[in-house]
Order: sequence, then structure tokens, then C-alpha cells
Amino acid sequence: MAELEKVTRLVTIEHFSTPPVEIIRLKRDGHALSETQISQLIKQYQNATLLDSQMAAFAMATCIQGMNADETYYLTKAMLDSGSRLVWPTDSVVVDKHSTGGVGDKASLLIAPLLASFGVRVPMISGRGLGITGGTLDKLESIPGFKTSLSLVELQNTVNATGCVITGATEEIAPADRMLYGLRDITGTVASIPLITSSILSKKLAESPDALIFDVKCGTGTSMRSLKEARELAAMLVQTCRRFSVKAKAIITDMDQPLGTAIGNAAEVREALLSFSGSGPPDLVHLATTFAYELLVLSGKMVTYNDVAENLTNGYAQNHFEDMVKKQHGKLCQLASPHWTPLIATQKGYLARVDTGALGALLVRMGGGRQLPDDTLDPSVSLAVPKKVGELIEKGDVIGAVSHTTPEPYLNELRATLHISNTPVEPRPLIMGTVTQDADKE
Amino acid sequence: MAELEKVTRLVTIEHFSTPPVEIIRLKRDGHALSETQISQLIKQYQNATLLDSQMAAFAMATCIQGMNADETYYLTKAMLDSGSRLVWPTDSVVVDKHSTGGVGDKASLLIAPLLASFGVRVPMISGRGLGITGGTLDKLESIPGFKTSLSLVELQNTVNATGCVITGATEEIAPADRMLYGLRDITGTVASIPLITSSILSKKLAESPDALIFDVKCGTGTSMRSLKEARELAAMLVQTCRRFSVKAKAIITDMDQPLGTAIGNAAEVREALLSFSGSGPPDLVHLATTFAYELLVLSGKMVTYNDVAENLTNGYAQNHFEDMVKKQHGKLCQLASPHWTPLIATQKGYLARVDTGALGALLVRMGGGRQLPDDTLDPSVSLAVPKKVGELIEKGDVIGAVSHTTPEPYLNELRATLHISNTPVEPRPLIMGTVTQDADKE
Repeated sequence: MAELEKVTRLVTIEHFSTPPVEIIRLKRDGHALSETQISQLIKQYQNATLLDSQMAAFAMATCIQGMNADETYYLTKAMLDSGSRLVWPTDSVVVDKHSTGGVGDKASLLIAPLLASFGVRVPMISGRGLGITGGTLDKLESIPGFKTSLSLVELQNTVNATGCVITGATEEIAPADRMLYGLRDITGTVASIPLITSSILSKKLAESPDALIFDVKCGTGTSMRSLKEARELAAMLVQTCRRFSVKAKAIITDMDQPLGTAIGNAAEVREALLSFSGSGPPDLVHLATTFAYELLVLSGKMVTYNDVAENLTNGYAQNHFEDMVKKQHGKLCQLASPHWTPLIATQKGYLARVDTGALGALLVRMGGGRQLPDDTLDPSVSLAVPKKVGELIEKGDVIGAVSHTTPEPYLNELRATLHISNTPVEPRPLIMGTVTQDADKE
Repeated sequence: MAELEKVTRLVTIEHFSTPPVEIIRLKRDGHALSETQISQLIKQYQNATLLDSQMAAFAMATCIQGMNADETYYLTKAMLDSGSRLVWPTDSVVVDKHSTGGVGDKASLLIAPLLASFGVRVPMISGRGLGITGGTLDKLESIPGFKTSLSLVELQNTVNATGCVITGATEEIAPADRMLYGLRDITGTVASIPLITSSILSKKLAESPDALIFDVKCGTGTSMRSLKEARELAAMLVQTCRRFSVKAKAIITDMDQPLGTAIGNAAEVREALLSFSGSGPPDLVHLATTFAYELLVLSGKMVTYNDVAENLTNGYAQNHFEDMVKKQHGKLCQLASPHWTPLIATQKGYLARVDTGALGALLVRMGGGRQLPDDTLDPSVSLAVPKKVGELIEKGDVIGAVSHTTPEPYLNELRATLHISNTPVEPRPLIMGTVTQDADKE
């Protein structure tokens, strides 16, 4: 027995025979790494035989030199394999949607229950906001009592009972990603398509889904500024899913103006509730309906866009949302109300441009978003931009609003983010492109 | 008083107002950094408010994206300013030579005392070997009792008494470089011209020299493999010295064959002693004489090459060497003797090529060099290659030798590094190029 253990250990050591510094140098010099090399680095990082400094150097080399599709798959697999995966009854259809995050993006609050209303399971593992983009967990935590730290068992029970859940990653889900993500944040290594892909997918694939859909945001209000970058990330996400035999599609959507009207945690939950009762902003409603419809079709459901649009406002989706909130200990009746101070147009014109990144940064400065991971939020702090690019504005119209105990200084800052033109301006299309696994094969 | 302190602190915080992660991202994206940004990173690293992981990411970004001459100067200055500088009597002329290291490079053992024999001061702060290239301190430590860890005061006293010293960097000399060097070694960030330049110069400039000369090795037996890289490093070294008003010159020398005959610590000290008595290998003698002569001229001494060549063998340099060894507690009479087992030529021909890197690696495997910084050395383990590329070899000639308790397995490995051709081969020139501050201005 002791002899056998010795042999096994020798094999393990042999398996990791490449010194990590050599693997780091290979990436530094732009070489492609093997599955063994990548899996070695992640395992050694997880068991602390690879130091933070070594992983930081590797992450920086990856940021600059990139990774090909194979390497990205190996990295995703290594991070996924660092933790547990959810297990579902064999007859269930499991789906999820992921958004790369943007200003005013509360679509997950609509999409998870909307999907559940069609009988699929939605174990949505989500994150917190940092910087200009908000986080779905932060929005839900503006509902008093709402619990976003469920155990794996609670998570599965909630999904089995109400069809959906929105909760944070547990310790068991892709622990290597949790370690690497924290490191990337402080070492300037966030902006990397292979690192972003493997971080997103290691958590999403741990949900054991049949199909995934990705909302890849593009514009000043998110991390991907150019359509080229967004397409690249979208392609890498759906390509990598195919390697795991998971159906996937990505839709690139505009983030050069906020999604919907409200920006700020409690106000965004209110806007989601409005959408369930038929009074949601058209762009938000269209986006949520489109993503739910496309994902249901991808997972093999026979539905039409109209079926999905109907469930969003006929009470079915709302029932699933309210059940989920109740199951996660939230008290919707106690949701904070923003106290809006309006911003009035002083001239006639057309809304030409919204500095969406500046809007997100303004919310952070007002106390409604995080600059650092440990910052606490005031959920009632909010902004609103009720107009869309291209809309006609009359003098005296409400073109914005601020919810804050001292709103005055922020009104002017809000005004500075809205650019009004004397001549007509084209509206911006919401959907900028679609990337499918089939298109990708061609 | 308390009020004043508060103001000062505010100023300090203001001074470091750029978050370090932003500076790291700038380098990641290939931007040039300002003096303030670079000095901030080094100061924060020294006082541990910048983490190892952050410095590793920065070092990797620098490795891949490079630094311009200004940035390299700022980095050198920041690392130099992290510690103390030596102080000399105003009438003294202080000089030093630095080698980037190669297989069999024991030239410092000759050059330091040879320079001292002309009345200049040589406070040579040197390093240990790691990997295929040996270290001057390791060679000297093969002399029983020789102390290479002098305090700053002992260092200055030795120089003032004997004209020269060869010792390790103290805690007070460029402490930021010591931290960064250890980090670079494990994070695959050694190969970078700005990082190498600032590491070399932060220590050499702390000696407060009037003139410096650099032996930039080029070939398979050192880290710079191509003439292009070697020229780039040479130019960066002399350029950066000019910014500190220190006269400097670099000579690029061949490392595609070992320097001299002996490779291995005790054997290299013996070869240095042989050179003082007129029996040194011609390439080593020429290299040592050239560097000492060029550096003396650079520092304003009126000497000829023949003056310098004479002092190497007339006992003057040897006296300085023996005084230095005595002052550093070494007992030359107890120096270990290698026990040579010869390698005999089995065919006639011309030495065409020496796998110099493989020779260095062989010495490490035999126990005469280090694979890891904590490895201990056996100083008596040695190799010898008495022939030079182009030399005629007769069957039966001694073409190599091994000093080891079990020499047999290594004799074949040594033979494999020596390539013999049937047709005549051109000898390799020792000096491949020179880089001066003037030439650099043109």
C-alpha cells in the first residue's frame, strides 16, 4: 500500500515535471500551451505551490500574448475541474443567460423567471458590481432580507421548487476562478478575452446547463468598447461551449446608452417589477424577450417570440420572480422607493449621445456602486435617463432624475452626460450582432 | 506640529495619487511611464504597499512591452535611490567592470587587481552564479576562508587599503533590486533589457564610480544569444550611465566558446593565478588587459596597452590580488587542486564548434554550478577545454578534461560538446564590437 502510494506520487511528480517558470516563459514568448501545462498551473495555484506572483506574471503574459481556442478551452476546463458541478434530474432542461454587464442592465431579473415560466430550470449564478457596471446580486439585495449566499443544496432546492434562482457562486464552484479573479483585479489583468472567457464559463458550466446564451455588451458603458472586441469575446464564448457539448449563442447588444430608464439598485428592481405589469421600457422588454426566446429555441422548446412576450406580462414570469424572492427570504413589499429629483430640458432638440460610462461612474461616486470590492452600497441611490438616443426633446421635458439625499450637485453632472443636438439623430439599434455555433463552424 | 504632519501626509498621498493597477495597465498596453509613476511603484514595492503579485505583473508587462531610454533611467534611479551609495575621498578615481556572465569567465579576478595596480579604486560588487554561467563570488569562495559578505565599512576599508575588493551586495545597496531580482527569477521575467540594465546599474552606480566598463557576452554560453540583443543591452547600459554623468563603455565579447581553458570554481581561480605568472590562456589575458586598459583610459589615466599587459604579469597585479584575498580572510595556499581526467582526441581535425551552453549545463549537473539559488557547490568539480575554435587537433591530443570523483560518465558528455571538422575552420574573434557614449550620441 505504502509502495503503491509512492509510485502514485512519483507519477504525479512526473506529470508536473515542467517547472512552472518555464510554462510562464513560454506564454511570455507567445507560444501556445498544452492541456497538461495549463492544468498543471491551475492545480498548482489551487494547492498554493504556484505563488500569486507567478500566477500574476502568467495572467499578464496571457493578457498581452493571448491564447488560442484550444488553450482557452483547457484553461476553462482546468478552472471548472477545480470545483463541483450541479446535478439535475435526467429529464430536466437546464439553461442560463450571462451578461458581460452594463449600465442599467437589470435584464437578468426578468429573464430568469421568464424562462422558468416555460418549465426549464435556471440556476443563475451571478456576481456583484465593481466599477461602472452594476451587479445582479447587488440589485436583488436592495430587496430587504434577500439572500444571495445559498449553499449548493439550497440553490438546487430553490430551482427545483420555483424553476429559478439568482445567487452568488459558492465556495465549491470553480474555486480557482475565485482566486484568479481576485488576483486579476489588483494586477491589471482583467482585460483579456481568454481570461474573461474561462472565468465566465468555469462558473456557468458548473451549473451543468444544456444551453447558454450570452449578452455581450458593447460600448462606453461596459468593458468591451469596440464591436471587434465584442465579436471576438462572443465567438470565444460560444466556441468554447461547443467543446463542452453545451449549445450556446451570443448576442451583442448596445451599451452606448443605458438599458431601460433606471440606474441604481432599488430603482432597477422597481423597473423590473414595472416590466412584469406591462409598463417596462421598450428596450429592456425587447431585450429580455429576445434572450429568453432565443435560449428556449436553442434548448429545443417550441415557442414563438409572442408566446415569450406574453409570459413576461401575463403574470406567469412575475409569479416565478415572486416565488424566487420569497424562497430566497426577500420581502418585496419593503423595497425602498427612490425619491426622484427631476432634471428638466432647457432647450428643444434630439438626444444625440449619452456618456454611458460617465453615468456609471457618477452612480459609483454617489454611493450607489463600488470602487473597491469591500465598499458598501446605498441601494436607494439612483439615476434615471428616460429618453433614448434619437428621441425628440421639448423644452421643459424631464430628461433625467437623481435619487440622493443631496441631489443638487449631481443634477449638473447628470446633465453633462446627455448631449442634445439641434438636428435629428438616428436612433441606435439595440442588437448589434449575433454569434451562433453554426455560423462559427463555417 | 500634528497639523503639519497631517499636511505632509496629504502631500505624500497626493504624490502617489495614481492607483498602482493603473500604472501596471499603462505598461501592459505599451505606454511609456513617467518618472513619478516608476518611482512610485518602486517605493511602494519597497514599503510593501505594492504586492509581489503586482510587481510580477508589472515586470512581465515590461518584459513584453519594453521600456524606452527615459523609463530605463527612471527605473535605475528609483532602484539606486532605494539604498545607500559609497563615499570616497575626493581625490580618488573609482572604476569598475561588469560582465553579464559566461562560461569560464574569470576575468574579474584579473581585472580588479590589475586596475588597482594603477592607483585607481575598484569596489567590485559582484554576484553568485545561477544556471549555466558561473559567479565571481562562487569562484572566490573556493579559496578557503574567503569572505564575500563584507559590511559597507569593511568594503570601503578593504578598497582604501588594497585598492580593490570583490564582494557581494550588502543589505544597504539597492534593496529594491534585491527584492525584484528574487521575484523575476521565479516569474519568468529575467530576460528584459530595461530590467537587466536597471538591476546591473543600480548596484554598480551605488559604488559611486567615475567610470564603468561592461563586458556584454554574446553567444550560446550566456543569456544574450544574438549580436542584436547584445548591442541593444550594451547601448542601454552606456546610455543610462551618461544620464548619471558616469563615463562608460561596453565591449561585446564572444561567448560561443568558453573564456580561457578552465570551467569550475577552484580551477578558474588557479587559471587566474597562472595568468599573473605569465602562463594564462591568451584569450583570457587579452580580454583582461583590454578591459583594464580601456577603463583606465576612460577614467583619464595616461597608459598604454603594453603598460597594462606588463602589470598583469610583473607581480604588481598579483600583489594586489593576494593583498585583497588576505584582507578578505582567504587562504590561497589551501586552494583545492582539481584532479584532471583527460579527454583524448580519437581523430585528427579542426575544432569547429563548442556547445558552450551545454558545457555550462554539464558543470551544473556535475555539482559545480547551481540549478536553484540555495544549491551548494563543490568547488573542485571542473571541466577544461584547452583548444580554441579553428585550432588543429592531432589524434591523441588532450582536447578536454574532467575533475570529478567519478569522471567517466561526464567524459562522454564533454566529448559531445566539442565538434571537430575535417576541413580548416576560421578562428572566432574574441571582440565582437564596442559601444561608446560618443558613438551613441551620433
